[in-house]
Amino acid sequence: MSHEFESFRARREAGNAKVLNTDNLATKRFFALDKQVYGPGALSTETKELLGLVASMVLRCNDCIDYHLERCVDEGFSKAELDEAMGVAMMVGGSIVIPHARHAAASIEYLLSQNDEN
Amino acid sequence: MSHEFESFRARREAGNAKVLNTDNLATKRFFALDKQVYGPGALSTETKELLGLVASMVLRCNDCIDYHLERCVDEGFSKAELDEAMGVAMMVGGSIVIPHARHAAASIEYLLSQNDEN
Amino acid sequence: MSHEFESFRARREAGNAKVLNTDNLATKRFFALDKQVYGPGALSTETKELLGLVASMVLRCNDCIDYHLERCVDEGFSKAELDEAMGVAMMVGGSIVIPHARHAAASIEYLLSQNDEN
Amino acid sequence: MSHEFESFRARREAGNAKVLNTDNLATKRFFALDKQVYGPGALSTETKELLGLVASMVLRCNDCIDYHLERCVDEGFSKAELDEAMGVAMMVGGSIVIPHARHAAASIEYLLSQNDEN
Amino acid sequence: MSHEFESFRARREAGNAKVLNTDNLATKRFFALDKQVYGPGALSTETKELLGLVASMVLRCNDCIDYHLERCVDEGFSKAELDEAMGVAMMVGGSIVIPHARHAAASIEYLLSQNDEN
Amino acid sequence: MSHEFESFRARREAGNAKVLNTDNLATKRFFALDKQVYGPGALSTETKELLGLVASMVLRCNDCIDYHLERCVDEGFSKAELDEAMGVAMMVGGSIVIPHARHAAASIEYLLSQNDEN
Repeated sequence: MSHEFESFRARREAGNAKVLNTDNLATKRFFALDKQVYGPGALSTETKELLGLVASMVLRCNDCIDYHLERCVDEGFSKAELDEAMGVAMMVGGSIVIPHARHAAASIEYLLSQNDEN
Repeated sequence: MSHEFESFRARREAGNAKVLNTDNLATKRFFALDKQVYGPGALSTETKELLGLVASMVLRCNDCIDYHLERCVDEGFSKAELDEAMGVAMMVGGSIVIPHARHAAASIEYLLSQNDEN
Repeated sequence: MSHEFESFRARREAGNAKVLNTDNLATKRFFALDKQVYGPGALSTETKELLGLVASMVLRCNDCIDYHLERCVDEGFSKAELDEAMGVAMMVGGSIVIPHARHAAASIEYLLSQNDEN
Repeated sequence: MSHEFESFRARREAGNAKVLNTDNLATKRFFALDKQVYGPGALSTETKELLGLVASMVLRCNDCIDYHLERCVDEGFSKAELDEAMGVAMMVGGSIVIPHARHAAASIEYLLSQNDEN
Repeated sequence: MSHEFESFRARREAGNAKVLNTDNLATKRFFALDKQVYGPGALSTETKELLGLVASMVLRCNDCIDYHLERCVDEGFSKAELDEAMGVAMMVGGSIVIPHARHAAASIEYLLSQNDEN
Repeated sequence: MSHEFESFRARREAGNAKVLNTDNLATKRFFALDKQVYGPGALSTETKELLGLVASMVLRCNDCIDYHLERCVDEGFSKAELDEAMGVAMMVGGSIVIPHARHAAASIEYLLSQNDEN
């Protein structure tokens, strides 16, 4: 699993560089706004990352799930909390979400094991 | 707006009664599980209702948005907090979510004005 | 409810006439193919209408649900059978499908009551 | 039909005012960016509005369809051109898009009849 | 192809074990309900598996397609019947479903060839 | 990247052959119609390919994106034009589209580098 998550990180970084290698100002603003939205405000960054995770689960995007899972683990969410968030996502999104729950469960295992090592 | 939200409540109650007027045990269990998922646990009910709201926004279902908005207002979320949650949903789900943000904004106005009266 | 289903039928017929009032041959062929797909073949028309119903439920389109429900009732499906098909759709598609299950339950009630009168 | 499209315009304007009646800066930037994206650039505004229309069709959002249809008619697209764009959207998105093609056909009829009067 | 389907089976089994390695009771009930829904009742298990297949096709989830295809082949559906079900799914879901029809066609070929060997 | 795009082409060709290896006439007509829709008419083939690309982006299908990107590059679209089309797709579809923009950016780089060699 370690390799899969690491390769996701590398693909993501290289891919974003390619997308942002453009003269299209709107795309650059879109990426900037995507960062700003998760910043602290009336809701905590922690809560907003969890919202981003569940939105990514019900929309069924593994790369988005992995990105927000990493941020959620950084924010200190426990396995039990992430499991419950996944439970809400599965309930709203249905059994079609299950393959993404499988993906997320492997990512959570990897991310938490990394944390333990540090 | 008041009439629209009240009519949603009435339609929802009558509709659920029709769906549950069935011998199909799986459907009854599905509805029971849908309640259980939002109960207190590792995450608070408050947090899980906000997850349900954002999931409903990105999946673009007005009835689901209204249901979770009412629950979120009951849990004490402020307009500023709900506005930020909608901001996350719009960022993840795109401009296609905007008509549902319009719907939600009207529902929030109504629900908070009701609270003020009480 | 009777009026709502009748008005759907009228809106659908008038709307299809407008869509087909075009020189665009591809659109006309698309509509013709949409009829052909549900004709008898290796699977019965009855089975294919039920597939169309469940596909419409998980994709959450009330007009499509109503169209296939009417066809399914014409093909002789009972309330218990339609309830089970809705149960599969809710399981696959999640609680976001529930508002459409409410819509479908009202349509089923209307369509079966019409059948009883004949 | 005239009333339906006019009421959409009124609902849209009032709803956007409610959404933007917020201290949430990200939401305001999101709306500003949504305007900027359709401005002239490497592609013409005309082409980008047609892209917005087809994206709205396959994502099945009537309010978004009506907004982009009005812009497309303002940009001078003919009925034959809009019919072909709808044909592409139906092909990509499937028969589940048909109810939205019905909606769009009525809006096109209204918008073009308005143009003829002017 | 054989390897791809076998690796799906292995990934699915290992992934489900990880998802169910949780104290979250709702998730366990969700998985149990997902089994129950396809059991015999007013509709046959055979029919319900075909409904699950078409729902998975229009929602475009290869892992879900593979799971239901295997169950459908176990229930005795022929290539001609599965081809027709895929035809309904493509019609409802549009050309965006075609890559999943390609995936399904390869899985069907593999699953039926396995059956021939037994 | 070159290998990934080439392997997509090979998988696509082999997969289509498997899907069309069927007695199901509707599927064959569906594929034929899918070609016809992009032919010249009131809109140019060029414009319709760009519509197909943006529809594929917001519906988040990498194989469909790659197919239409190749066609768009064949039709002569520049990187700046494709970047703007991706900008519209991200705005409409939200940040959930970003992983597909990453995929598309790599494909564009490959396809344009191929063009330069010829």
